Amino acid sequence: MKKITAIYAGSFDPVTYGHIDIIGRASELFDKLIVAVGANSSKNNIFSEKERLEMMKKACSKLKNTEVDKFSDLIVKYAKKKNASVLVRGLRSISDFDFEFQMYLMNKKMHPGLSTVFLMPDEKYVYLNSTLIREVARMKGNVSDFVPNFVEKKLKEKFK
Amino acid sequence: MKKITAIYAGSFDPVTYGHIDIIGRASELFDKLIVAVGANSSKNNIFSEKERLEMMKKACSKLKNTEVDKFSDLIVKYAKKKNASVLVRGLRSISDFDFEFQMYLMNKKMHPGLSTVFLMPDEKYVYLNSTLIREVARMKGNVSDFVPNFVEKKLKEKFK
Amino acid sequence: MKKITAIYAGSFDPVTYGHIDIIGRASELFDKLIVAVGANSSKNNIFSEKERLEMMKKACSKLKNTEVDKFSDLIVKYAKKKNASVLVRGLRSISDFDFEFQMYLMNKKMHPGLSTVFLMPDEKYVYLNSTLIREVARMKGNVSDFVPNFVEKKLKEKFK
Amino acid sequence: MKKITAIYAGSFDPVTYGHIDIIGRASELFDKLIVAVGANSSKNNIFSEKERLEMMKKACSKLKNTEVDKFSDLIVKYAKKKNASVLVRGLRSISDFDFEFQMYLMNKKMHPGLSTVFLMPDEKYVYLNSTLIREVARMKGNVSDFVPNFVEKKLKEKFK
Amino acid sequence: MKKITAIYAGSFDPVTYGHIDIIGRASELFDKLIVAVGANSSKNNIFSEKERLEMMKKACSKLKNTEVDKFSDLIVKYAKKKNASVLVRGLRSISDFDFEFQMYLMNKKMHPGLSTVFLMPDEKYVYLNSTLIREVARMKGNVSDFVPNFVEKKLKEKFK
Amino acid sequence: MKKITAIYAGSFDPVTYGHIDIIGRASELFDKLIVAVGANSSKNNIFSEKERLEMMKKACSKLKNTEVDKFSDLIVKYAKKKNASVLVRGLRSISDFDFEFQMYLMNKKMHPGLSTVFLMPDEKYVYLNSTLIREVARMKGNVSDFVPNFVEKKLKEKFK
Repeated sequence: MKKITAIYAGSFDPVTYGHIDIIGRASELFDKLIVAVGANSSKNNIFSEKERLEMMKKACSKLKNTEVDKFSDLIVKYAKKKNASVLVRGLRSISDFDFEFQMYLMNKKMHPGLSTVFLMPDEKYVYLNSTLIREVARMKGNVSDFVPNFVEKKLKEKFK
Repeated sequence: MKKITAIYAGSFDPVTYGHIDIIGRASELFDKLIVAVGANSSKNNIFSEKERLEMMKKACSKLKNTEVDKFSDLIVKYAKKKNASVLVRGLRSISDFDFEFQMYLMNKKMHPGLSTVFLMPDEKYVYLNSTLIREVARMKGNVSDFVPNFVEKKLKEKFK
Repeated sequence: MKKITAIYAGSFDPVTYGHIDIIGRASELFDKLIVAVGANSSKNNIFSEKERLEMMKKACSKLKNTEVDKFSDLIVKYAKKKNASVLVRGLRSISDFDFEFQMYLMNKKMHPGLSTVFLMPDEKYVYLNSTLIREVARMKGNVSDFVPNFVEKKLKEKFK
Repeated sequence: MKKITAIYAGSFDPVTYGHIDIIGRASELFDKLIVAVGANSSKNNIFSEKERLEMMKKACSKLKNTEVDKFSDLIVKYAKKKNASVLVRGLRSISDFDFEFQMYLMNKKMHPGLSTVFLMPDEKYVYLNSTLIREVARMKGNVSDFVPNFVEKKLKEKFK
Repeated sequence: MKKITAIYAGSFDPVTYGHIDIIGRASELFDKLIVAVGANSSKNNIFSEKERLEMMKKACSKLKNTEVDKFSDLIVKYAKKKNASVLVRGLRSISDFDFEFQMYLMNKKMHPGLSTVFLMPDEKYVYLNSTLIREVARMKGNVSDFVPNFVEKKLKEKFK
Repeated sequence: MKKITAIYAGSFDPVTYGHIDIIGRASELFDKLIVAVGANSSKNNIFSEKERLEMMKKACSKLKNTEVDKFSDLIVKYAKKKNASVLVRGLRSISDFDFEFQMYLMNKKMHPGLSTVFLMPDEKYVYLNSTLIREVARMKGNVSDFVPNFVEKKLKEKFK
């Protein structure tokens, strides 16, 4: 029997039901799942690394084989450090496809031992997109269908 | 017989022949059409809200059932306020598709009574794109095939 | 106020919840909706024109402004005969997009007065595809999530 | 530690280096991999089920945790019978994406316990496509870059 | 100065204004252009090889550096025989893209000295598609916007 | 025999093996090739115009019919000035396609005598993307598979 550690990395700004769906399924596929919150946030992020990490920890609190971590390194280096052999990516749409394919091939060049595994979202979450959710929250729209309660609350604080 | 109010919203920076094509056709499909110019312009906009509103009013001056307005709210809230039940969107290319699909599904969650209707451009306008037009105008290219005269003039003033 | 007749045409072999979703929404947008079942079925059709027509009539029985008809003509000619000025098309995926765009532009050349209006499916039906459903039914899979009861029954008879 | 059985199904008419790449990587990800050769071949297949099964067995002969089988059932039923919880799919291009997404969502409805996992090909195999390879072989082109020796030989026999 | 022979191959069933647009532009780019009409027609072709060849010769009669030929071989072998170093392909839509990319890479493997060059259609012809045109002609629609007069006449004879 | 001058323009920030592949092939297709480095760099560029020009000159030093130049004008104006009748563009992915199609059609409107010719990358370079390479270099990843040695060195200096 194998023991495989997988990584699911992102900026999660904020974590959505779509991310949580992928995390739940990835945690069932692999022995250990590390959810890695990107530290070096872009200018467009609204939540700090610490806030994003906290929200993700809440979102994953019930998953036993799942660990939430931050990372600031190239993902292929981080994977080596963590002894992970699988990278999990969500694949939501055609626009994702091209970018994901390029990243997958570059990562493969840099770290051939790291496999990338793609999961598609449940159809209930196919439209979820952190950028759009931030936009809706900024304009005081209702985001309760898109993110957990504790994220909705944080968004409201941010934009009040 | 039904009485349907539709909204066609955008930043229109600037309005192109492609927008005008969609507006003309939408005004024939629905009893009333509101062309809604987005108020909260991004940093990349070159025309002010007032300028964009004025240009759009000129562009729509001959359409009887069409009203030009500005909006600064979430589109689903604005639609409710205006008692509109249809959102008109232009669908020009595959790249549009993914984004439009995500927005459509999010809007549907937030306001199930609002229908989104997609119109494709005439093949003459399939390539029109405000971003590219601004780029061409910025470099003193000829934009007379892409926008009405009064918009061309405004672009020339902006970039002289 | 306008009085617009719209057509939603297809082979509907068989009608799915996805089609019914589009029909329901189109019937709300326009004064009259004609659901036109294509007569000249391809070799791959499993139901006869008569069967497909009957199933569609059942599916639309509660919609007041909706009429089910068959057609064997070019859609632009049929639209003229029926005095319809709108063609409704479902747009489910990128693969649909290219084909729909080509057909839309050809139809526009042949009948400029006919507007094509695209509706996207509810996310619950985004994956529905008559070809796949026929395949599942052929292999005795459960199609109750994809088609109404009376269609499921017909599929079972067909493939027993 | 988990014990996961995965299925990689297809018609494999014939097996290509692209399939073999996916199989090798899937066999490393999961405890057991079943490569399932579709029995009910379409009219366009050139190799019989028996031939396709034999070629696949040769292709997989060195992989210890991999079993080659045939199946004639709906894949979700076959997965239940085999106690498999993962379906592996290759995702080569945008055209694949739409179809795969529809199939994934239908399979999920019919068998929620079955996870679909997508792997992208190595860039060396991104262009491999059984249909094109059959076409090339039919016209006596050189297919040695696309399929293993023993498949090349079989193709030559078929089309001499 | 270089002397480059290019090939533009297809089934041309029938030749459309879109093909003629590509041919005209390719003939300006290269010293010699061979328009190669595929001999081994599929079952869905409506015109014989001889008919398709004749129509193409008429369509190209005014282009001096252009020769119309038939071919029944693999395109890479035909190119070698003709001493051609360039393959011209029209690229009309995203659906074309994937297939063209696969064919391009396979051809490159089989004949590295053959360059593939892609031309996009004029926006006036972006929607032209021989399959749709055959469909329209079959149902007695007007195809005069899509094909030259002499092709329209042939289509009418075919389907009367 | 024709004498055709072609232009391959870009920001090349930095030049990658993918660009070099396209340049090598374009230089074989046309009598003269001008590689034009865009002067007015966006805010996201990491190398100055001078640096990008120098790197490109090194990359093209062995190609006889190829000249490296800078340009700050609209590409259609620059082409006129240089008496070039062909614009060469690399087409790597679907995401490129839409944008390239729009630009091609706009350029055609502004300068009908300028042909755009698309080349697809070798499969070895299909994933190369200057943005991703900058990202990798910024995080001290190994870019030796993606860019020539002298570019790798410059990237290391930039990000040390």
